[in-house]
Amino acid sequence: MKLDDVKNILIVGLGLLGGSYAKALTRNGFDVNVITLSQDDIDYAKAEGFIADGTTAVDPELIAKSQLIIFALYPHTFIEWIEQYGHLIKSGTVVTDVTGVKGCIVDKVQNMLPSGVEFISAHPMAGKETCGVRAADDSIFAKANYIVVPTNRNTPDGIRLCCDLGRALGFRDVSSLNTRQHDEMIAFLSQLTHCIAISLMCANGDPNLVRYTGDSFRDLTRIANINDEMWSELFLANREALLMEMDGYRDAFNRLYDTIKNNDRDAMREMMRLSSARRKTFNEGEKLI
Amino acid sequence: MKLDDVKNILIVGLGLLGGSYAKALTRNGFDVNVITLSQDDIDYAKAEGFIADGTTAVDPELIAKSQLIIFALYPHTFIEWIEQYGHLIKSGTVVTDVTGVKGCIVDKVQNMLPSGVEFISAHPMAGKETCGVRAADDSIFAKANYIVVPTNRNTPDGIRLCCDLGRALGFRDVSSLNTRQHDEMIAFLSQLTHCIAISLMCANGDPNLVRYTGDSFRDLTRIANINDEMWSELFLANREALLMEMDGYRDAFNRLYDTIKNNDRDAMREMMRLSSARRKTFNEGEKLI
Repeated sequence: MKLDDVKNILIVGLGLLGGSYAKALTRNGFDVNVITLSQDDIDYAKAEGFIADGTTAVDPELIAKSQLIIFALYPHTFIEWIEQYGHLIKSGTVVTDVTGVKGCIVDKVQNMLPSGVEFISAHPMAGKETCGVRAADDSIFAKANYIVVPTNRNTPDGIRLCCDLGRALGFRDVSSLNTRQHDEMIAFLSQLTHCIAISLMCANGDPNLVRYTGDSFRDLTRIANINDEMWSELFLANREALLMEMDGYRDAFNRLYDTIKNNDRDAMREMMRLSSARRKTFNEGEKLI
Repeated sequence: MKLDDVKNILIVGLGLLGGSYAKALTRNGFDVNVITLSQDDIDYAKAEGFIADGTTAVDPELIAKSQLIIFALYPHTFIEWIEQYGHLIKSGTVVTDVTGVKGCIVDKVQNMLPSGVEFISAHPMAGKETCGVRAADDSIFAKANYIVVPTNRNTPDGIRLCCDLGRALGFRDVSSLNTRQHDEMIAFLSQLTHCIAISLMCANGDPNLVRYTGDSFRDLTRIANINDEMWSELFLANREALLMEMDGYRDAFNRLYDTIKNNDRDAMREMMRLSSARRKTFNEGEKLI
């Protein structure tokens, strides 16, 4: 199946990401239905015109008629949903997700789904500090990356469809990693940065700081306003890789600390030059935005 | 003397900050002259129309006719300049600076200047990842804070003039701290954040990371591209306060690390909620921008 052949898309979980997917896909001409917990959210999205319809029930007919099903749930909710209702998904359906960690998800879901149902996992690296469907906004995809995470059980067709979905959603870049590569990358680039921001905010409670805050502190801590339910789950779901990246970062921080403590200006400047050189390689990417 | 009474301003050091000051002050109708190292920089600034004139010589006449002198030099260069040429500054002149650390500067400079010359220190908390007069841009002041750092040797008139200068430059907020408060605040809000960004960039050299980088990592590491000459000097000039803030941050990071290592989700979520609550208090400030 190609994405062009898909008419009916089902989104399970109408939150920030599910809603943002719905907006982009409805605009692209797909018939988007949802299954989600809150009737209120469905009413809102219908009134706003970015879903065709939705239900709070796990409706077997709706599931059967959907050619592509996108799960936009927390990791454990996703697993539980597949355990309970996975058998309702018909052979020939393609299933994908938005889960931010993969090692603890992908094999499990592929094992549970009925034969003939292909699960091709993906991670849209986009988000916001707010949550819920009312914050849905598919413009966040334009400067974000979409990572497809296939296993050896995926087909070229399934992988292609998932890549095309990323492009249809409007992501700036679509690429592919295996589960281990994905989880290590996400541990460093996303989870560690959130750990840093949280630690920095927890380190100093002086309420007067606000007045003197400049851009660097604001930029660094923007992500410190964090959905604790979701992120604590994501951290623990990727615990080994995250602890490894935290160790590596802590070593670098301690090295810098020692250069200051020892008045070792040469070693300090060497770290600064390495940091600057590496950071400049990221500027190219910024120009793409 | 009031800022309204000032006609002739001398800026010593025409770099990013000196140039940005010159742009704002020339637009405000002041007669701005400079003393700086490079004739090329003077020619550029004159051609661009944001200085009246300049010289690479330490011109006693120019110094004598200037009612307000602004030093935009590295800390040690500032001290050396005052040691060598401070005696040329006439009684009645007001002197200020842009130095990012204060404890090692303010008393020293106040002690060295001739009697009748008032040094009122200030820290414009604005910057860029680029340096030099060609990067000068006074629009960076609009969302930045200007901190006046008086001692008990400053006069109400001198403090007022310096505050008025911050407003004339277009800073969003003008406030006042003593040297110890200033240096502690700067250690946490500015220097520690730069230490974090440097450490993060030094922790992982995988060149493939660029492709997967999202906003949070880019925001966190923008300041990792750092002027190593200037910042190593600033770090060492504020060593005690910086090491103290680094210790506090490291403790918080280690606490978070342990919650993950121990699968202690409750403690982890508690840190995330504290972090979120504190970060929200900074959002008000963002709205002001």
